[in-house]
Amino acid sequence: MEANKTYLIVGLGLLGGKYAQVLSQKGCRVNGITHSQATLDYALTHDYIREGAIRDFEPLVQQADRIIFGLYPTVLLDWVRQYGHLIRPGTLVTDVSGVKRGVVEPVQQMLPEGVEFIASHPMAGRETSGITHSAEVDFAPANFIITPTDRNTEQGIAWCRELAETLGFARISILSPAEHDHMIGYVSQLCHAIAVSLMCASDNTDLAKYTGDSFRDLTRIARINDKMWAELFLWNKDNLISEIDMFSNALQAVRTKLVEDDRAGLEEMFRLSTERRKAFDQK
Amino acid sequence: MEANKTYLIVGLGLLGGKYAQVLSQKGCRVNGITHSQATLDYALTHDYIREGAIRDFEPLVQQADRIIFGLYPTVLLDWVRQYGHLIRPGTLVTDVSGVKRGVVEPVQQMLPEGVEFIASHPMAGRETSGITHSAEVDFAPANFIITPTDRNTEQGIAWCRELAETLGFARISILSPAEHDHMIGYVSQLCHAIAVSLMCASDNTDLAKYTGDSFRDLTRIARINDKMWAELFLWNKDNLISEIDMFSNALQAVRTKLVEDDRAGLEEMFRLSTERRKAFDQK
Repeated sequence: MEANKTYLIVGLGLLGGKYAQVLSQKGCRVNGITHSQATLDYALTHDYIREGAIRDFEPLVQQADRIIFGLYPTVLLDWVRQYGHLIRPGTLVTDVSGVKRGVVEPVQQMLPEGVEFIASHPMAGRETSGITHSAEVDFAPANFIITPTDRNTEQGIAWCRELAETLGFARISILSPAEHDHMIGYVSQLCHAIAVSLMCASDNTDLAKYTGDSFRDLTRIARINDKMWAELFLWNKDNLISEIDMFSNALQAVRTKLVEDDRAGLEEMFRLSTERRKAFDQK
Repeated sequence: MEANKTYLIVGLGLLGGKYAQVLSQKGCRVNGITHSQATLDYALTHDYIREGAIRDFEPLVQQADRIIFGLYPTVLLDWVRQYGHLIRPGTLVTDVSGVKRGVVEPVQQMLPEGVEFIASHPMAGRETSGITHSAEVDFAPANFIITPTDRNTEQGIAWCRELAETLGFARISILSPAEHDHMIGYVSQLCHAIAVSLMCASDNTDLAKYTGDSFRDLTRIARINDKMWAELFLWNKDNLISEIDMFSNALQAVRTKLVEDDRAGLEEMFRLSTERRKAFDQK
């Protein structure tokens, strides 16, 4: 795709690094900006990028035709506030943020006239972080969500979709930022809140030797990047609190049925759960 | 093992069927009792058993040197109450029940003099059930827990351990029935209560197309055998309620930190969670 365009990845973490790796493999010209010399060295020696910088990166920004922000939401907002004016008109920009309200519109407002930011979320995160784990990321089974606003053009959205296709995502969807954040509160953030709570509930590490697949699967995501997930949770706190409350009500319903020896009620919940879960296997 | 002994599997479900399959493959003489003609036919045509019956099974019981109960706890208690007197003195007996208090001592009391019941729990359940899925069960990575009481002999316990080795379990442990039920309330039952609650919290099947590995892993066990799990939950309700309460407190702590915008507090929970989860990967 677009072999004549210069890509710039700002933030060479797990996902930014993977974008750089794949786009370079596909023959694109990819440059990178990061705050860490070790990350920069890794990206250069692994041919993830052609050029890169940890400071004095203005020329790289000004050369870019396409920019991908691989930054946490707060860092993204700070970066655009500080350096957004360097981006040339005509540049298409996207990101990888796991929350969209609170990010998309401010970034769009701060960018210079003629720079189009088409927000997107590659749902391919892992419990690891950093560019040294980028090679393990697998886009093939993952969802890619584009969250346009009325400031976006058809051409900009088409470019973002083409990017996702080039990266190899299984499914590309379009949602509003609000729809995205509602969805992500349930399918991702609530799951992480549950896994973390299960590990924090009591120190049961002495029981580790008895655990089976169920427990391991449920808590795999309890290994969590603390700074990034605190950001994601807080940027979406209204949705997440609402999901926690709905989940807690259901768990309390299980508890009540236990207290009341309500076998039929438990069986009914189990059948509902089984039926709904089947829908998730079919998709 | 014990090629000269006659095994009887009472209850040819997922686990009973698997025991029959493996023991027959190892050259043991294995017979079976079930309540379903279709199950019996399956077991016979797949060479899981040599002889079997759905009624008039007294001769099979009287011939048995080793009996394995592949029954739900309530059905196990009923069966022993009704037919336990048919078992010959000298017979060694075990089970597969996922709860132990409330099962082990009553069964030991009801069995005839000279019949030894060494309770055990093969932690190799799956979200499927029935003998047609037995071949998918994998004992190789699984735990096998023996829960002896002071009525058991060293020889009986040694036989049960040898059985687990023959079946190919990765790890064999000895716990008291109370220790077992405490452990299983956390590593298995709480996980199932959480997965079921997540599916029952709201009808989010329209979000299925956006789910990734985290959600799928967390809810795999939400496909649940309703009758068996209602039994397991109710037989262990004191432990499970206590685990639900500890978990709920941790989840409410996450919620409070969200309400209070307590970024440092969230990060602290995430670091604790990450650290504890590592212990579970090392075991």
